[in-house]
Amino acid sequence: MLPAFLDLASLKSAYAGGMTPLDLVDEVLARMDACDDPAVFITRTPADDLRAAARALLARAPQPDSLPLWGVPFAVKDNIDVAGLPTTAACPAFAYRPERDAAVVARLKAAGALVIGKTNLDQFATGLNGTRSPYGAPRSVFDRAYISGGSSSGSAVAVASGLASFALGTDTAGSGRVPAAFNNLVGIKPTPGLVPNTGVVPACRSVDVVTVFAGTVGDGVAIRKVMEGYDAADPFSKKAKPVSLPGSGLRIGVLDGAEREFHGDAACEALYAAAIERAKSLGAEIVPFDYAPFREAAGLLYNGPWVAERLAAVKDFFASNAGDVDPTVRAIIAGASAYDAVDAFEGLYELEALRQRTLTEWEKLDLLMLPTAPTIYTVEEMLADPVARNSRLGRYTNFANLFGYAAIAVPAGFDPRGHLPSGVTLFGPPFSDDALAPFADAMHRALGGGMGRDRAAALPEASHVAEADDGLVPIVVVGAHLTGMPLNRELTGASGRLARRCRTAGDYRLFVLPDTAPPKPGLIREPGFAGGGLEVEVWRVPPAAFGRFVQNIPAPLGIGKVTLDDGSQVSGFLCEPYALRGAREITGLGGWRAYAASSA
Amino acid sequence: MLPAFLDLASLKSAYAGGMTPLDLVDEVLARMDACDDPAVFITRTPADDLRAAARALLARAPQPDSLPLWGVPFAVKDNIDVAGLPTTAACPAFAYRPERDAAVVARLKAAGALVIGKTNLDQFATGLNGTRSPYGAPRSVFDRAYISGGSSSGSAVAVASGLASFALGTDTAGSGRVPAAFNNLVGIKPTPGLVPNTGVVPACRSVDVVTVFAGTVGDGVAIRKVMEGYDAADPFSKKAKPVSLPGSGLRIGVLDGAEREFHGDAACEALYAAAIERAKSLGAEIVPFDYAPFREAAGLLYNGPWVAERLAAVKDFFASNAGDVDPTVRAIIAGASAYDAVDAFEGLYELEALRQRTLTEWEKLDLLMLPTAPTIYTVEEMLADPVARNSRLGRYTNFANLFGYAAIAVPAGFDPRGHLPSGVTLFGPPFSDDALAPFADAMHRALGGGMGRDRAAALPEASHVAEADDGLVPIVVVGAHLTGMPLNRELTGASGRLARRCRTAGDYRLFVLPDTAPPKPGLIREPGFAGGGLEVEVWRVPPAAFGRFVQNIPAPLGIGKVTLDDGSQVSGFLCEPYALRGAREITGLGGWRAYAASSA
Repeated sequence: MLPAFLDLASLKSAYAGGMTPLDLVDEVLARMDACDDPAVFITRTPADDLRAAARALLARAPQPDSLPLWGVPFAVKDNIDVAGLPTTAACPAFAYRPERDAAVVARLKAAGALVIGKTNLDQFATGLNGTRSPYGAPRSVFDRAYISGGSSSGSAVAVASGLASFALGTDTAGSGRVPAAFNNLVGIKPTPGLVPNTGVVPACRSVDVVTVFAGTVGDGVAIRKVMEGYDAADPFSKKAKPVSLPGSGLRIGVLDGAEREFHGDAACEALYAAAIERAKSLGAEIVPFDYAPFREAAGLLYNGPWVAERLAAVKDFFASNAGDVDPTVRAIIAGASAYDAVDAFEGLYELEALRQRTLTEWEKLDLLMLPTAPTIYTVEEMLADPVARNSRLGRYTNFANLFGYAAIAVPAGFDPRGHLPSGVTLFGPPFSDDALAPFADAMHRALGGGMGRDRAAALPEASHVAEADDGLVPIVVVGAHLTGMPLNRELTGASGRLARRCRTAGDYRLFVLPDTAPPKPGLIREPGFAGGGLEVEVWRVPPAAFGRFVQNIPAPLGIGKVTLDDGSQVSGFLCEPYALRGAREITGLGGWRAYAASSA
Repeated sequence: MLPAFLDLASLKSAYAGGMTPLDLVDEVLARMDACDDPAVFITRTPADDLRAAARALLARAPQPDSLPLWGVPFAVKDNIDVAGLPTTAACPAFAYRPERDAAVVARLKAAGALVIGKTNLDQFATGLNGTRSPYGAPRSVFDRAYISGGSSSGSAVAVASGLASFALGTDTAGSGRVPAAFNNLVGIKPTPGLVPNTGVVPACRSVDVVTVFAGTVGDGVAIRKVMEGYDAADPFSKKAKPVSLPGSGLRIGVLDGAEREFHGDAACEALYAAAIERAKSLGAEIVPFDYAPFREAAGLLYNGPWVAERLAAVKDFFASNAGDVDPTVRAIIAGASAYDAVDAFEGLYELEALRQRTLTEWEKLDLLMLPTAPTIYTVEEMLADPVARNSRLGRYTNFANLFGYAAIAVPAGFDPRGHLPSGVTLFGPPFSDDALAPFADAMHRALGGGMGRDRAAALPEASHVAEADDGLVPIVVVGAHLTGMPLNRELTGASGRLARRCRTAGDYRLFVLPDTAPPKPGLIREPGFAGGGLEVEVWRVPPAAFGRFVQNIPAPLGIGKVTLDDGSQVSGFLCEPYALRGAREITGLGGWRAYAASSA
């Protein structure tokens, strides 16, 4: 009945076919019992409680379509509060039993989702590898010798194993992205401040963000939308408007050759190169950029005063219970004592100086695309060198929250042996969360590597993320605004983009207006006239720029609708008829460019 | 020839009347020599250098109108670099001789302004009173027993005394505002990040901003515009779009009764109440708000980890030369050692939590209006209790830069004895710098208290700050978009405003287009046609709404330029000529409204 991977569309279809949330709960409980990785959950929701939740959902909202996440099972990283279940942060001595759900959990429950349990993590979310937990190390679903990635280790494995439709992670350095890469999943990392942190054990409070692991970008975005929204109780919650990106022709920043460091992992390197080719085939413009300021910022997170935030998060506990903390985590947190307030502010200055350097790079980019992690390690390798190898895993992730970016990690395929997966992450400016999703989804769909452990699964069409409306409006230009002509800068200067070159319908005539300098074209429609159409370009410009552009057009020109050779009607230049008296007709030349060439 | 107060308009007028920059220099030098306060300047520009600068200006730009600040004398707070003059920050042992101008000074010089000297300040800009300097305490220009305010003490006194047209201050806690209040001046405090801090000795680097003291809001804004603009060399420089405010009916937040603390100064209290009445008379809506979160944030600046920024600014110097630092300043800077990095981040958390609380208040407000300072002290009083009394002076200023606001301090009149001035400050959201200026200017003009020491001076009309351009674009409507007609909601729904009712020029003809339902008008110009013009309305709409509006106009209609009966050309509806075949002409009815009435 249910496929191996519990994506939202499959679940919806099963519910439409008569499955009930109680059936779903039984199936999930059976899968959890059968799961061969004992380290995924720290606490499972008791079976009776889970059934009770399903019954309560049926009582509250009997119809499957009545709530956006009706009967959708999800797992919660165990540093996020779920009322009634202990929050351990993977530190038994730290555990407490919250009375209230974290804000994001409350919103997901209200939308009909069912919590199946609390998942394992690198203790206090301090790590990117998944081995720093007294509850064991969750393993890659593709090879138990390998790490699952962390810190949101159990959450990623739970989704990749088909135990939950999605799971919540948290991401400070990269904890919502690295485990996605290692488990063939999508990791949605919102802009910090977009989803509230209320009820989450902080790692670095100023840069923490709750994330979603899911099978597709569409599923992840749909879930994130349920979670997002201002929460005054979270000091870092933001009210901000979404940022848009061009709908097509994205300029994608990629690592320059010298910055492509994979620590000898040729498979990951090749998969990154393949992802770049895939992006190209999707119409992106590939732009190598200077990764140095991003890399330097990444270094600040663990090797700078931000570690003091990790101490601030658990200060009282750490003062009395340091001995109960994982030795590696303890050493990291204890490192905070090396920094005084002057160091903290100097770290901030350094970060802002680096941000200025990144702005220079962003001028030529719309998104960044980086390897999610440069390589992967076995659990044994990881334990042998826990700090240095962890640090390598964060090479391409650590800067993201310091700069406030939105990011989506997507699968990038498997190594040549078809053994272990890799991933790439797309980064956009703050609050470009929705804007970057269509391209991330297109990248994932162009890959065809299934979802999680189910490598054969087709990505459900229902979760396809349509190209965002870029908000631009089209305009047909016929004369001096054509590419390369003198007034074209009015379009490019207004962030306009060339959308296509084509011709008008056949019943248009073109004139050179008398007494204009530089000469201006007069385009006029004459139903019944049988010409060959005229060369035009369709540009797309922001509405305000379009508005100002129209404002600045002098009589006798104006903007009406021009019918193109495909029958579509697009805003474009027209001319008042009185101005055509005595005008020279150039319809026969086929367009203004030919006229300009002939008169030059 | 020159008035006592050297506002820009008076200077311009003198230059137009034949004065030269060399005459100006002689006059300024004479005034500086005659000045009875020896503590205003730390370093005067040598007379020969000043004359050379005037000659260089004449050589570079002979015409008075050729540069925005041609021949305008200004003073620079001595924590801002001017090439060739020492920067002392009021600490002789700290002095150095910069090779380059601070970014703002370079921009001002490029605009034609002349540096007359470096002014005294509270050492390292640490203070709001002006007594913390080994170079003496500049005094209020109204009573030498009283403080001038600080830390930009000398700058304010220089302008108030007519030695300079304007002066630069810096503002961390309130140093660009308190001295304005105490010297009957305007203090322009830009949004942090709007003007670069490159070449400024930091006080608290994350919240410092360079300010302007001037006679009028208009002068101050004109000068700030020369200084502003992104500078990648300043880590905190920002690229941000200006924020707009309603053009009228501003909601002005004022202190609720219980928060009105003037430390027993009934004169200041009465002047604040009078300012509120003045705001009301200017059409503002007065809204008492909860000052508590702002007050609590104000407390963080000196009684929280931000003092570590003061140490960070002079760390190496302080390590070796603490004994050379003013004892009060030394104690403040030394306080930094009490804070570790955890404290720094916890301070940040507290600030962000307070910011969330302020957002609730801002929902009902456009601007805040607070007393600039609650009271004033004599130099003797100040020295007797330097920390507590300084702290009182910052009660209504300290929060501003922590929250990133724009602020303008304006005079608020004199105490009943006509003896000492008071001020109010208007605060707007980040990057509302231009938007809040018209109301600040109106408040100042409604007061009528002169400029600086010249209490009888009329504020020059040339510096009047016009109500901000509302950014709307005009559109002529002729048919169903007229007020009360079916499509008028397309304008009102897009925040459009009716600007005026009028008629087209006489050579327009109006038709009812055939086969349209509801019927649509076709307006067409026919030079030579002698009609009576047609009834139209001019609406004003936001550019983006206008752009979308134009996008949605179907053929055969379009937007071109319509000539109105006053000869002006405004965007408006036109019609493609082919659509008029067989159309009924209604020019004789005088307009669409008459046609609609006749056909109803």
